[in-house]
Amino acid sequence: MVSNKQSKFIKSLKIKKYRSKEMCFLAEGRKNVLEGLANGLKVKYLLATSEFVKDNKQDLSIVESQLIECTNTELTDLGTFTTNNDCLAVFEIPVINQPLDHSQHIVLLDGVSDPGNLGTIIRTMDWFGFNQLICSKDTTDFYNPKVINATMGSFARMHVNYANIVDTIKDSPMEAYGADLNGTPLDQWKAVKPTMLVMGSESHGLSREVHDVLSGRVTIPKVGATESLNVAIATGILCHHMRFNLS
Amino acid sequence: MVSNKQSKFIKSLKIKKYRSKEMCFLAEGRKNVLEGLANGLKVKYLLATSEFVKDNKQDLSIVESQLIECTNTELTDLGTFTTNNDCLAVFEIPVINQPLDHSQHIVLLDGVSDPGNLGTIIRTMDWFGFNQLICSKDTTDFYNPKVINATMGSFARMHVNYANIVDTIKDSPMEAYGADLNGTPLDQWKAVKPTMLVMGSESHGLSREVHDVLSGRVTIPKVGATESLNVAIATGILCHHMRFNLS
Repeated sequence: MVSNKQSKFIKSLKIKKYRSKEMCFLAEGRKNVLEGLANGLKVKYLLATSEFVKDNKQDLSIVESQLIECTNTELTDLGTFTTNNDCLAVFEIPVINQPLDHSQHIVLLDGVSDPGNLGTIIRTMDWFGFNQLICSKDTTDFYNPKVINATMGSFARMHVNYANIVDTIKDSPMEAYGADLNGTPLDQWKAVKPTMLVMGSESHGLSREVHDVLSGRVTIPKVGATESLNVAIATGILCHHMRFNLS
Repeated sequence: MVSNKQSKFIKSLKIKKYRSKEMCFLAEGRKNVLEGLANGLKVKYLLATSEFVKDNKQDLSIVESQLIECTNTELTDLGTFTTNNDCLAVFEIPVINQPLDHSQHIVLLDGVSDPGNLGTIIRTMDWFGFNQLICSKDTTDFYNPKVINATMGSFARMHVNYANIVDTIKDSPMEAYGADLNGTPLDQWKAVKPTMLVMGSESHGLSREVHDVLSGRVTIPKVGATESLNVAIATGILCHHMRFNLS
């Protein structure tokens, strides 16, 4: 049974202001919740139907004191899914203190605004084994429920920081390459050393200030007639290229 | 001024049943409407604000008799955008009678259900210069407004057919390769001849019947921990690979 106070708290986490204040976020559905638990995120509440509890006894044994059994009607009412017959977790937002690992590729997002795109980028990075993500302050919030849902559980393996992109590039010993319509064709570019890959916003691409601090720009060659690629698709093609050292 | 009859007709096109009956669909916003016109789609109505008409005199000169000036409030009310200050077109669904061009790569979708994914796949195919798309009957409708919007105008250059995927593969002289978690690693695969690329559904992958008629399966190697790639991302990486004859 969920109390009124808990219900109000959980619903408030759909809004960024309250996520920042409480340092908590929502994860909904089997995949996101179990990945969060498996990757050691701290749980404030775990709401689940009795059936889900029965089917996942082992996974849930570590969160017994935070577990609240409820109905699927309650779950659906509290979260953002059209229907939710499984579970919903309130996780604490982890504080990342460790410095960037400069021996691994890093993805930087300069103003990506669509939550679906951000979630898909995180899922794609996870596929290729990249787990360091830097977002500009005007990039959409990583802990937005739409982002978390689109990651399909990959959010739990990502180290994300919101920071100034120009300063991050300047302060790093790594080379930074930006995706752009007028760069080096991808087949002539090889990320031989660990590299920062910078992706611009859906509507404006890379900002002028970021352009000025890049080591270079890289382009996925176009054959057809459309003006631009979706930013998540472009990130996917570039991460694949970087991961397997293609050129 | 839009009549009640026109308004009812336009709104009905948000629903597949009425699109099929009327053989018409909606395109909203500057990009989608102008790309539709530029690519010769037949216009039934073109609704636009006086400002849009003034700014696009040349492009709209060919549709004078179908042009209806209206307010942005009317446009927003009729369509699916949160706000629309430009235009909305009702285009006729083109009937594609020409046979498949077997000298060009073809993409086949086996049960892709998310409109955003389908739209992004179309936009990505257009970037790489592929314009032949075959969708299984259970793939989401190409003319759904969410699909059209996600294509960013690329819908107008795509030749799409809804057909049985197994029969299409069997009836074609081309080889068909399916994207799958247990196929040949992408770096060991080269689409030397024009090829059919088959992508499965978001939740179930390729159907058993399709598996049985493939020439082979191909895999984008995974390094990290997530279970699967988004279908549009996978299509993007594979189209890029096929277009530039990589291996």
